[in-house]
Amino acid sequence: MVTEYAMLVIDPARAAEFESAVAAAKPCFQAAEGCRSMKLERLAEDASRYRLCVVWDSIDHHMVLFRNSDNFQTWRKLVGGFFAAPPSVDHGVLVANYFG
Amino acid sequence: MVTEYAMLVIDPARAAEFESAVAAAKPCFQAAEGCRSMKLERLAEDASRYRLCVVWDSIDHHMVLFRNSDNFQTWRKLVGGFFAAPPSVDHGVLVANYFG
Repeated sequence: MVTEYAMLVIDPARAAEFESAVAAAKPCFQAAEGCRSMKLERLAEDASRYRLCVVWDSIDHHMVLFRNSDNFQTWRKLVGGFFAAPPSVDHGVLVANYFG
Repeated sequence: MVTEYAMLVIDPARAAEFESAVAAAKPCFQAAEGCRSMKLERLAEDASRYRLCVVWDSIDHHMVLFRNSDNFQTWRKLVGGFFAAPPSVDHGVLVANYFG
């Protein structure tokens, strides 16, 4: 399993509308093959930045299967218009979960 | 609760040694007031980058109490020598956990 982190830059004036759009896109991820969880965080240091965290079975489940799916098109239709900059994406591979 | 994300840049040749040092520092976090969990990930896209994810009761538990504690000094003694660049740190405030 890998965790996708997407840093999304949004006009803070549209924050509530953006958050509703992400919530509306939940089924796109829930239906995606190999998608295990999805959460959204807002950065305490910068109200214009959100971190979308999505756990996938593999990078290919995200970057190949999902990116080429109708679910991805729907996701981008719902939220793409809010992006003030291209999303910055990486994938974290767990080294260790020490506690908690 | 907030999640601290620290991006740590390490010489990949010292990766195994660095990972052991982080494991050795687990008690510093486990003993810290308001610290709920701690995990380490390595970036799939860049073997020199690790993301340390630590859940705290509040930003102050991390930035005030922990940063001024002996636990922080011990943590930095254990791992600070591995940093090839100053760590970049932010805090994510949960908007929603949609599923998973």
